Amino acid sequence: MFETAELGRKVTKREFKIQIPALRTELLKVQQELRREKKFQVMIVLGGVDGAGKSEMANTLSDWMDPRGIATHAFGLPTEDERERPEYWRYWKTLPPRGDMAIYLGAWYLRPLLDNAYGRTGLATYDRDLNQIVAFERELVNDGVLILKFWMHLGKKAQKKRLDALEKDPLTRWRVTDREKENWTMYDKFEVASDRLIHKTNTAETAWHIVEGEDPNYRTLTVVRTALNEIRQRLSAKSVNASAVPSFVSSDQEPAINVLRNLDLNQDLSKKEYKIQLEKYQGRLNRLALEARRSGLSTILVFEGADAAGKGGAIRRLVAALNAHQYKVIQIAAPTDEEKSRHYMWRFWRHLPRAGFITLFDRSWYGRVLVERIEKFATEGEWKRAYAEINDFEEQLVESNAVVIKFWIHISKEEQLKRFSARENTPYKRWKITDEDWRNREKWDEYEDAVDDMVQLTSTAAAPWTLVEGNDKRFARIKVLKTCCHFLEEALSRQKKKKTA
Amino acid sequence: MFETAELGRKVTKREFKIQIPALRTELLKVQQELRREKKFQVMIVLGGVDGAGKSEMANTLSDWMDPRGIATHAFGLPTEDERERPEYWRYWKTLPPRGDMAIYLGAWYLRPLLDNAYGRTGLATYDRDLNQIVAFERELVNDGVLILKFWMHLGKKAQKKRLDALEKDPLTRWRVTDREKENWTMYDKFEVASDRLIHKTNTAETAWHIVEGEDPNYRTLTVVRTALNEIRQRLSAKSVNASAVPSFVSSDQEPAINVLRNLDLNQDLSKKEYKIQLEKYQGRLNRLALEARRSGLSTILVFEGADAAGKGGAIRRLVAALNAHQYKVIQIAAPTDEEKSRHYMWRFWRHLPRAGFITLFDRSWYGRVLVERIEKFATEGEWKRAYAEINDFEEQLVESNAVVIKFWIHISKEEQLKRFSARENTPYKRWKITDEDWRNREKWDEYEDAVDDMVQLTSTAAAPWTLVEGNDKRFARIKVLKTCCHFLEEALSRQKKKKTA
Repeated sequence: MFETAELGRKVTKREFKIQIPALRTELLKVQQELRREKKFQVMIVLGGVDGAGKSEMANTLSDWMDPRGIATHAFGLPTEDERERPEYWRYWKTLPPRGDMAIYLGAWYLRPLLDNAYGRTGLATYDRDLNQIVAFERELVNDGVLILKFWMHLGKKAQKKRLDALEKDPLTRWRVTDREKENWTMYDKFEVASDRLIHKTNTAETAWHIVEGEDPNYRTLTVVRTALNEIRQRLSAKSVNASAVPSFVSSDQEPAINVLRNLDLNQDLSKKEYKIQLEKYQGRLNRLALEARRSGLSTILVFEGADAAGKGGAIRRLVAALNAHQYKVIQIAAPTDEEKSRHYMWRFWRHLPRAGFITLFDRSWYGRVLVERIEKFATEGEWKRAYAEINDFEEQLVESNAVVIKFWIHISKEEQLKRFSARENTPYKRWKITDEDWRNREKWDEYEDAVDDMVQLTSTAAAPWTLVEGNDKRFARIKVLKTCCHFLEEALSRQKKKKTA
Repeated sequence: MFETAELGRKVTKREFKIQIPALRTELLKVQQELRREKKFQVMIVLGGVDGAGKSEMANTLSDWMDPRGIATHAFGLPTEDERERPEYWRYWKTLPPRGDMAIYLGAWYLRPLLDNAYGRTGLATYDRDLNQIVAFERELVNDGVLILKFWMHLGKKAQKKRLDALEKDPLTRWRVTDREKENWTMYDKFEVASDRLIHKTNTAETAWHIVEGEDPNYRTLTVVRTALNEIRQRLSAKSVNASAVPSFVSSDQEPAINVLRNLDLNQDLSKKEYKIQLEKYQGRLNRLALEARRSGLSTILVFEGADAAGKGGAIRRLVAALNAHQYKVIQIAAPTDEEKSRHYMWRFWRHLPRAGFITLFDRSWYGRVLVERIEKFATEGEWKRAYAEINDFEEQLVESNAVVIKFWIHISKEEQLKRFSARENTPYKRWKITDEDWRNREKWDEYEDAVDDMVQLTSTAAAPWTLVEGNDKRFARIKVLKTCCHFLEEALSRQKKKKTA
């Protein structure tokens, strides 16, 4: 899920300097309005790995605002006073009054995260901790508090680099204690624990913003802009002209990077190499599928992608390796009347495979956060809630002994145009291209944003997304086959370990 | 928490027969409207102990309605088909389409309840199960489903009586299997598990209705009336004249029993006996408080009650036994500006005692579901949510090594009048009586309902309510002292066990 926060986003010093004066002025203006209206309070939660800039961020925000209306709270080990009361006492005490802002470093997330990463709590207790967080934040939100949560992320290497730099500088050396160093060696455990934390506490009302933490300018701009946007939106929601308020100044030099634009779409494979690999991986998949059948492991495959990205072709190469009795391909189109009269997830639950069987979904429940979001078939509340609902659904699948493999097959906008034109010019392919495809194409950027959010919020440890570079069909098909083999192998060996344990 | 469902409520055969025709007609009318409008579906969950009439209730509802629009689902051990998929698969499959109704016996509650009562799951796993239920129901509610949940309750003795009767009758003997008999011997464990289940899954949108199950006529009328009311309310909420729709026919012969009316308020104590007991329990309390101080057990006492019920007098007799350094009395009146600008629970969190200390709240957070509910200072959503928030708060207190003791001191309406008049006629007591007291008195019945709900929904295993019969002040004061001693003793011995374990 941190794919979206390891893209190397940067803002140059010059660009940063140009942006600052306007941002600071805006920030003060918004703070003044907040203090004048006293309609709600703002709580900013800064979470994330060590060295990703949480304290710098808190300092910047405090520096740029009127200190009378903002407080920063960091929490170390509980004091004696605090240990003698419920854990949340120290958080309740610090609640800002309406009109004020408060920044929380680590906040109520830190203790559960550390406990789980260090193995002091198991999954059930960790989930209980996280559920308590959700309940706490819901109480505050119901009372009108605006909670903004930022998760500052650093890749493993970037974190090491940053810690080394801090340590080298005599001015910052004190900040790198043994705890930070130990945390770094535990990076992978922290990543798994953070992943769960974010998915379990990401609600429609208190969504996490994941911020790439490597470049200080980038992260500062991102956090401040997001905070400004959300506070302004909320301030104006109270007034009459809510929808008329423009969103905050968007710089045209804004770094235009997302997970999709970051893909190298032109990786390719020669015809000869393709044939060799196709045979190899189809053979392997066939054996793995038989093994899965015997051991009762179910497989759920999800195919999503841009129009004409090659989902169908990839699916055909895949099922060619399978016994026809063992799999089912479910084409997801507009829902039927029967489906429409029930919850949107109902139609997917219906098609779950039995133990040992395989279901391939050609488009899936992700329609909720893609087409339904963009075409406004789902309300904002509905699609924002859907991320958590989907994660919950997939977690149930994995816990019931299924492996969930999800592909987003991507092509460039130019490649799509080429394929669309080819389809129109080939009589037996013409049926494949409709007016709707052309309409969707016009919304390319919106889809990119939606996919970025989707990958960020639903690529879980239990069911991660695989992004497939699709400009070369051969390359894409092999990557899909190979990935399937990889995840099946992994799941089967996990299962064996469980059985022998 | 089942105090409210063991009051011996009954409806005579004659009264029942009078009510039936109108009820059945209404039920059909509502069903027809539901089927015509197809705006939402209704899911009725019937939970509760064996023999409390779950299946009879399902049968009655089905008999009285058009079978085309209602289905009943009972779930035994999962079939092979079901075991091979996530646990919730079988529930998802049965979701009714909009316009239909479905009755669920035991539903998704049964497996977690049995597992916990039989000790197969610990607390953390049980909570995780219950949280999953909350998430599932929230998804459905967000999609527009109306979920009605009834918990059919039978006291321990009543349950035995009923099982014996079922077994004696050759026609129903088959229904009493070894499982039912075993469950009965486990009654207490089931009660604790049910208590937790209800509190953790009682949300503002999917509230539990606890139904006394001993008398078939009473429980049938109650369930049908409640269901009718809620479905009608929801149907009319969609139309324009929502508020103009009258609530369902209320029978003036309706059994007028609630926890408060069921109290024998006239228990008394002679002056002589009072002196003996006062000395005895004050002495005991003093020793227990010292022990609590030494062992770090905190005590939180909550005093609620009708105006002039004698809260102040009881508190004075209690603190007379305590060292002044060890306790604090917090008078809760209208919130200050500082308090008003924050979440309503903030002012209570502030006053939590340190380990070993005692805080007495003269009125408390329960104002939210009493005066704030009745005077409409809180919205319906706010006070309905508050039950869960309060339970959560008190659970945190207990888990952090505090004992929570809650008193509702009650007097009869006549006794209150006597005391009001006495106050008005005694110059040095006149300040105690205000116009507000007289206004509250006019809302006596509303307060009784609110207290009934409060006791039902917040008398948890961790922090139960004690109802104090207050017409005789001496009796009430001794009961308060005695109860404090009892709960402190219990908590101290639990603590000792934990330490030696």
